Amino acid sequence: MPAISIKGDEMPASPIRKLTPYAEKAKREGKHVYHLNIGQPDIETPKGMLEAIRNIDFKVWAYTPSEGIESYRNKLAGYYNNLGYAISADDIIVTNGGSEALSFAMQACINPGEEVIIPEPFYANYNSFTRAAGAVIVPILSSIDHGFALPPIADFEAAITAKTRAIVLCNPNNPTGYLYSRKELEALRELCLKYDLFLIIDEAYREFCYDGREFVSPMQLEGLEQHTVVIDTVSKRYSACGARLGCLITKNKALWSTVLKFAQARLSAPAVAQIAAEAAIDTPQSYFDAVKNEYTARRDVLVAGLNAIDGVYSPNPGGAFYVVARLPVDDADRFCQWMLEHFSYENQTVMMAPASGFYNTSGSGKNEVRLAYVLNVNDLKRALICLERGLAEYPGRL
Amino acid sequence: MPAISIKGDEMPASPIRKLTPYAEKAKREGKHVYHLNIGQPDIETPKGMLEAIRNIDFKVWAYTPSEGIESYRNKLAGYYNNLGYAISADDIIVTNGGSEALSFAMQACINPGEEVIIPEPFYANYNSFTRAAGAVIVPILSSIDHGFALPPIADFEAAITAKTRAIVLCNPNNPTGYLYSRKELEALRELCLKYDLFLIIDEAYREFCYDGREFVSPMQLEGLEQHTVVIDTVSKRYSACGARLGCLITKNKALWSTVLKFAQARLSAPAVAQIAAEAAIDTPQSYFDAVKNEYTARRDVLVAGLNAIDGVYSPNPGGAFYVVARLPVDDADRFCQWMLEHFSYENQTVMMAPASGFYNTSGSGKNEVRLAYVLNVNDLKRALICLERGLAEYPGRL
Repeated sequence: MPAISIKGDEMPASPIRKLTPYAEKAKREGKHVYHLNIGQPDIETPKGMLEAIRNIDFKVWAYTPSEGIESYRNKLAGYYNNLGYAISADDIIVTNGGSEALSFAMQACINPGEEVIIPEPFYANYNSFTRAAGAVIVPILSSIDHGFALPPIADFEAAITAKTRAIVLCNPNNPTGYLYSRKELEALRELCLKYDLFLIIDEAYREFCYDGREFVSPMQLEGLEQHTVVIDTVSKRYSACGARLGCLITKNKALWSTVLKFAQARLSAPAVAQIAAEAAIDTPQSYFDAVKNEYTARRDVLVAGLNAIDGVYSPNPGGAFYVVARLPVDDADRFCQWMLEHFSYENQTVMMAPASGFYNTSGSGKNEVRLAYVLNVNDLKRALICLERGLAEYPGRL
Repeated sequence: MPAISIKGDEMPASPIRKLTPYAEKAKREGKHVYHLNIGQPDIETPKGMLEAIRNIDFKVWAYTPSEGIESYRNKLAGYYNNLGYAISADDIIVTNGGSEALSFAMQACINPGEEVIIPEPFYANYNSFTRAAGAVIVPILSSIDHGFALPPIADFEAAITAKTRAIVLCNPNNPTGYLYSRKELEALRELCLKYDLFLIIDEAYREFCYDGREFVSPMQLEGLEQHTVVIDTVSKRYSACGARLGCLITKNKALWSTVLKFAQARLSAPAVAQIAAEAAIDTPQSYFDAVKNEYTARRDVLVAGLNAIDGVYSPNPGGAFYVVARLPVDDADRFCQWMLEHFSYENQTVMMAPASGFYNTSGSGKNEVRLAYVLNVNDLKRALICLERGLAEYPGRL
């Protein structure tokens, strides 16, 4: 039997999935599981977007241009320009989800053996895309005690070597929910200019900023035009994760042309998703206002509830729909598994993502979990009761 | 300005696209261009498949499982088992087009620096996926004088080194249209078993076999179960290139698990396409019979017409919807460009793909072109007249 590729075999399995067998077993045993472990929102997709799917009128489901349908890119450019990005349709390449945009960025910006700096904890799949590109992640610790703010620039500077090619940042952050400030992004601008590094910025959660806080993109900062690579997706903005539609934006023409070659190799992005996403740009502001209100209420319930539990600490993050909380446990991996395998309260339990999978530094995040507030307020309240009871009963409680 | 990745920059541009600017110019000048250069069929997508898109009834456009929707994989397995593949739904991973399946196969089967043997001419994007995996293509010449049959096994054997991990074959072949025989596949089976090589078989054109010829897959051959990796797509089968839906099939569980990790990293394949493709499996046989009749008629017109032109030779291939023809010209790249730039007959011209882009061996295929018979018989006849006149006028005619 031929050996499979060592590189392929070493692909990290997703940390969010390792508990899946235990969750399935819990369900088979009749327990209700509150899924706070995944980023699949329960929010409805805008009606106009779904209507556009039902209204398709082509007879041949044909390839679309590798860079994306022109009318969609034009309308997308308008959306970004309303945010002050000052781009044109020709700065965009439409992709198979934000995932492919990340994958293209890694392959186009980083050579095998070269390095990319990422504050940890970070979205675990960055490991996969970086590894597939043959690149090396250099993690820099952001701390729960500072609410997962940007680590000091000196920490970045200390990590830069001759092999460093890019900094990757997710804003607002998955898994921490932290919303980076203008000041933090300006500090990164100076660093990227000083060392000529790409700033690959994953803005999947752009629409989800709370408490009137300002969202800032490096696309809005002067001087970083040739260094900025925006990764985006319609998954969270329109609760359309199944569309598999994202894009990569860069004003760096050489980079754009290189990314286009990767895009041409896989021919095109899905046609129906592009038609639907073009319609989605007309989604009324009332949709986003309602979604933002809903998420704000959920976050408030979740964060207050977490901090009310003895020994638990959660910062109050400004964006996305995640929080990372510290628990009074020996090992969050073990605790999360125990909650599924050995615990129930009124035949219910909670599934969370142990934060260790979001850190590359061994031992980090050992007593932290990520919770996604993708359930309604009542379910969150019940999940919090389960968590409190679970912590009280857990044998490895500290 | 940060330098882009050298690896990224060296990604080969698609050979099919390099003439696009000349075609656009020809159109601006008012010429009608017969597009025989691309594999985008004009055949209508099955009505039931489009109906399934219009009938979607979900409210949240959610992620689907990374390996594909279970009901779709079950139905797909039934389709393959009707062909004698003897697989289960759990041998399938649904992908973003055949392109992603190829990309996963390359990354999972081949380590950076290792080699894959591919008979040339071959589908040009194999270059991109192989290069992205850091692997090296070792081409073996198949000759137009033998109708692009499988090269002698001795040629494969001579090319095998300690670094060889896989053989890639497209059956029926793009770009040559050649349909590999049972005997040829059995010879490859012995070779793969002897040297423990993966056989990555791209069956995108499986439905397109003519003259009553038998389609044979290594999935139907005993003994190769652990070595075979099938790449498939709905693009050509249902004329649904814009769906971006394919799959990878392997009974090798270790390989399947590794590919699943790549699939999990990009989360899922498009949801609507899977719903539509599940419906498409019920497409009546009459649809395929009509399509096959249409393509047979087109191929007959094209091949007879090509061979009737002085100095032109085209084999009569048994499958797909391509032919590679030899032309009496100094350089097919130059000729194809000249046809767009400097030639017209009754204000019409023909766009073809120079075959050089399908060869890795420098100088090979210099007087060959690939023609896709994706236009109706009348248009093909007109295109043939243009080609004949063009060859008569072309200054570089031999």
